[in-house]
Amino acid sequence: MVGKSQIKYIRSLQQKKHRKASGLFVAEGVKLVNELLLSGYSPRFLYTTDPEILPENVPPFEVVKEADLIRMSGLRSPNKVLAVFPIPESSPFIGEGWILALDSVQDPGNLGTIIRLCDWFGIPNLVCSEDTVDCYNPKVLQATMGSIARVNLFYTPLSEFLSNSKKPVYGAFMNGESAYGVRWPDSGVLVMGNEAHGISGEVGDHIHKKVSIPQFGRVSAESLNVATATAILLSELRRNPGN
Amino acid sequence: MVGKSQIKYIRSLQQKKHRKASGLFVAEGVKLVNELLLSGYSPRFLYTTDPEILPENVPPFEVVKEADLIRMSGLRSPNKVLAVFPIPESSPFIGEGWILALDSVQDPGNLGTIIRLCDWFGIPNLVCSEDTVDCYNPKVLQATMGSIARVNLFYTPLSEFLSNSKKPVYGAFMNGESAYGVRWPDSGVLVMGNEAHGISGEVGDHIHKKVSIPQFGRVSAESLNVATATAILLSELRRNPGN
Repeated sequence: MVGKSQIKYIRSLQQKKHRKASGLFVAEGVKLVNELLLSGYSPRFLYTTDPEILPENVPPFEVVKEADLIRMSGLRSPNKVLAVFPIPESSPFIGEGWILALDSVQDPGNLGTIIRLCDWFGIPNLVCSEDTVDCYNPKVLQATMGSIARVNLFYTPLSEFLSNSKKPVYGAFMNGESAYGVRWPDSGVLVMGNEAHGISGEVGDHIHKKVSIPQFGRVSAESLNVATATAILLSELRRNPGN
Repeated sequence: MVGKSQIKYIRSLQQKKHRKASGLFVAEGVKLVNELLLSGYSPRFLYTTDPEILPENVPPFEVVKEADLIRMSGLRSPNKVLAVFPIPESSPFIGEGWILALDSVQDPGNLGTIIRLCDWFGIPNLVCSEDTVDCYNPKVLQATMGSIARVNLFYTPLSEFLSNSKKPVYGAFMNGESAYGVRWPDSGVLVMGNEAHGISGEVGDHIHKKVSIPQFGRVSAESLNVATATAILLSELRRNPGN
């Protein structure tokens, strides 16, 4: 049985301020927790209703009743395992290849989906403006399906990051050049903007080339969702490098 | 002031069985309701806290207090307008060009995003298996951002539909030919599968060509989210027809 104060403590980690204060985050569900364990994340606490579902050579864990798991969980339907991990240190990176940068993406599902896309398209580095939603938000983690373990995230003032970058900077705009005709280099930064307002003026000043996804339906003022637009642009820059 | 029984009736339309019984659905928020009104949808009831936000030549409406809107609403943060519309009749279609088909897509956000993609990429017809999530589910409607007014949806037994179709049928699989190398014809059906299980065996029997989105990261058993995969495949079949 898990004590009341421990349950309360774990539940408090649903909120960013408590994650920040403690340096811990909660991961739930077999898929996500196992991906983190297999990627070398070392849990502070690990609870399961069914030890069979854990990978081999797992760190010490506690078997709990479903009722306890429900009390600890932030999910509507808790799924067999809950772990508390230290938030890993992230560091600025200078690397080869492409970097994806997000300017104030707010929706947790969008960020989680974008992390999963980075994993799929082999983009190891994701830079987020400081007002982008926290990647340890439980809804972000669920949407990553474990990909968070394989993508390096870094929160930083985005304009400053871009002004110091030596890579060419591409940004998604409604009125840019067709992404289908771009000669994508082997290395660069691709910036995606906020769901409602796109890329901010301050960040936009650092963008060398504006790109757009052509619209084929009746042309309207509509835009694509930021996660689907990211999917298409990452696919473009990978499908035919150098065009 | 809106009567108690009316509030209860409107709230009941959050559930599919009540939508089916009444033939009505609820749309909320300025963007969605205005798109439907401008597309010629005729509301059975129309409530707003602020008549200024409605388009010109709007049908009769009732100005309500915010407290009443909150009571009627299925949203956490109701947004100025709520309308009840008759569910339009959909009919089987035979048309030119591409048709998107969904085999048991379950997540409302995914269906809503896919409807928005159909609108962007000029795919007027979307066929859904009968166990695909209901498009008048409020979460689907929110995610469409109004695009539902411009896409014709049709729920039908999918295998039967495909076996009667004269168009070539493409399907998204993990082990298909690279989508980047496909010579997409001007007309066809593209089938996308369930979030967890992909395309079912029964539907798969009607697919002429399996296509995949290449993976560029460390190759794993992971897949892309169905909405992002749809985004990339619709972009592919539009970007360079006939390759």
